[in-house]
Amino acid sequence: MYLGIDLGGINIAVGLVDDSYHIINKDSVPTGRTRSFEAIVKDMADLCRKIVEEAGYQISDVKCIGIGAPGTPDIKNKCVLYANNLIAFQNVNLETELQKYFPGMPVYLENDANAAAYGEILAGAAKDVDSAVIITLGTGVGGGIVIENKIQAGFRHTGAEIGHMVIEKDGAQCTCGRRGCFEAYSSATALIRQTAEIIKEYPDSIIHEMIGNDPSKISGKTAFLAAKQGDEAGQKIVDQYVAYLGEGVTNIVNILWPEAIVIGGGISKEGENLLAPLREYVHAHQYGRGSECSKIVAAELGNDAGIIGAAMLFKQAQ
Amino acid sequence: MYLGIDLGGINIAVGLVDDSYHIINKDSVPTGRTRSFEAIVKDMADLCRKIVEEAGYQISDVKCIGIGAPGTPDIKNKCVLYANNLIAFQNVNLETELQKYFPGMPVYLENDANAAAYGEILAGAAKDVDSAVIITLGTGVGGGIVIENKIQAGFRHTGAEIGHMVIEKDGAQCTCGRRGCFEAYSSATALIRQTAEIIKEYPDSIIHEMIGNDPSKISGKTAFLAAKQGDEAGQKIVDQYVAYLGEGVTNIVNILWPEAIVIGGGISKEGENLLAPLREYVHAHQYGRGSECSKIVAAELGNDAGIIGAAMLFKQAQ
Repeated sequence: MYLGIDLGGINIAVGLVDDSYHIINKDSVPTGRTRSFEAIVKDMADLCRKIVEEAGYQISDVKCIGIGAPGTPDIKNKCVLYANNLIAFQNVNLETELQKYFPGMPVYLENDANAAAYGEILAGAAKDVDSAVIITLGTGVGGGIVIENKIQAGFRHTGAEIGHMVIEKDGAQCTCGRRGCFEAYSSATALIRQTAEIIKEYPDSIIHEMIGNDPSKISGKTAFLAAKQGDEAGQKIVDQYVAYLGEGVTNIVNILWPEAIVIGGGISKEGENLLAPLREYVHAHQYGRGSECSKIVAAELGNDAGIIGAAMLFKQAQ
Repeated sequence: MYLGIDLGGINIAVGLVDDSYHIINKDSVPTGRTRSFEAIVKDMADLCRKIVEEAGYQISDVKCIGIGAPGTPDIKNKCVLYANNLIAFQNVNLETELQKYFPGMPVYLENDANAAAYGEILAGAAKDVDSAVIITLGTGVGGGIVIENKIQAGFRHTGAEIGHMVIEKDGAQCTCGRRGCFEAYSSATALIRQTAEIIKEYPDSIIHEMIGNDPSKISGKTAFLAAKQGDEAGQKIVDQYVAYLGEGVTNIVNILWPEAIVIGGGISKEGENLLAPLREYVHAHQYGRGSECSKIVAAELGNDAGIIGAAMLFKQAQ
C-alpha cells in the first residue's frame, strides 16, 4: 500500500491507495497555508497515520509516500523550492521532514497538476492509453502531460502551462502578464466574464432572471443551463466558449498528438454538452482534418486524481 | 557505420555516418517524385552502395539503414503509409524493399522532420541537452520534439505540427485550413508577404530600390538586410516578425519547457540578428518571466541533420 498526499493551499488531502489504484481510505484537513512548514508537515504526518490506522493497517504496511505539491519542486531532492500558495515552503525537503515521523520511509514529490494528470492516466479517464494531456478548466487553466506513462514537465518541472499559450495575439489580458492566453478565454473565470458581457446584448435572455439580475451570481454553469433551455444568448456564449476552448485543444493535438485529451475542472462537469461540440470543433480544425484524432474525454477522478497520482509517484522513479 | 537517407520530394540524400555522428561520405540524386516507388528505392540503394564504396568500405561494414521520409510513417512496420510529396509511396514497406538490395539489413524509418530534429540533438545545436524542440522556419513552419533523447511524435507519428498552432484566432488564412496559425505569421513565406505589405506604407524605404521595385524579388532576407542599414520599414517588419515568432516560441516554452529551442530553416541563417531579439521577447513573455528559460539557438547541421538523425534511428528502437 501507498500513501498519496495532495498538498493544496486550502486542504491537505491524504489517501491510502492499493496496487489497483483504489483509495482504501482518505481524509483531509485545512492547510492553514500561512503556518510554518513544520506545523503543516506535522498535520500531513498525523493524517497519514490516522487514515492508515482507521483502515486497520499500520504504517509499516505502507511502502512509500508520494506528494503532489503546488509550485516548483526539485523532484530529485524531494524539495519544494517555491510555492506561491504555501509561503513557508521555500527549499523545504519533504523527505527529510516526513522521515522525522516515519523513519526510513521513501518519499516522492511532484507538482500537484502533474500528479493529478498521472492519476487520470493510471486510474481515470485515460487509463486505457499511455499518453495523454490533461487540461483543467477551473479558476485558471492548468495542464499536465504524460507520454508513455512518464510525466513530462521539462526542465522546470512545474505543470505544463498550457493555459499560458497565446491563442489571440494582443487579446484579453491574462494574469500571467501576456495578452490573449488560452486561460483568458477558456477558464471558468473567463466563461463567467463572457456570460456577463454577452447578456448585455440580450435584454430578453432568461439568464437575467436566472441570476436575479445580479451579475455576481453568474457561474460557469449559467450559460450551459440557459442554452439547454433554448436561450439564444446562452447558446451564443456556449458556442463562443467552445470555439476558444477548441482552438487551444486543437493546438495541443497538432503539437503533441496525444492518444487522449482529458478535460477536467469544474466546467468539465457539463459532460457531453461541452465535449460533443468540442470534439466536433477539434476534428474539423486539426491538421489533416478528418483523419484520426486524439480522443477527448472528461476527467473521472476529480480530487482523487491528485491522491492516486501522488501515491503512485514511485513508479516514475523506477 | 550507419547509412542515413533523407528522402525528400526533390532529392534523395544519403550519408555514411560513424559512431561519432560524423558524415564520412554523402551524396544526393534527384527524387523524381512522380516515379514508381520501385524506381525510387532502386536509386536509394544504388546511392547507398556508391557512397559506401567511394569511402573505401563495403556494405557489410554497414550495421543498418535509417530513413527520414515525408508524410505519415508506420514506424513499427517500416512503412510509409502516405506522403503528399511522393505519390507512389502508399503503404510501402521500406525494409522489405531495401532488403531486396541488401539482404538482412535492418532498416529504420521516421518522419523526416523528426529525423532532422533527432540529428540536431545528437550532433548539432542541441547536442549538450536531452530535450529540445526544433522549429524550422522555411516555406512553412515545421517541428520536431525530442524529450530525454526520444522522438515524441504522438499516435500519428508525423512531425509535431507546431506551425499549425493558432496564435491569432480568426487571423491570417493558413494552408492547413485554420486561420491564424503560427506558420501563417512566422514562415519565410509569411515574412515575404509581411515585407510586401509594410513597404507600401513606406515609399521612401530603401527596400523599394533593393528589389528594383519588383515585389517578386522580396526574400526572407530583404527586411533583415534593410533593417541592418537603418531602414525604418525594414526594422518595423523585423520587429513585427520577431513578435509573432516570439509568441509561438513562448507558447512552446510554456507548454513543454524544453532545455533548448532550436531554430532552423532559411530564416535561421540571420543568426543573432534574429535570435537576440527573439530571446529577449521570449524571456519577457514566458510564464514566470525572469526565471530560467529554455536556451534558444540556431540549428547547426542544415540538411545534414536529416541524414545523421536517420542514420542513428536504430538508437530510438533500443
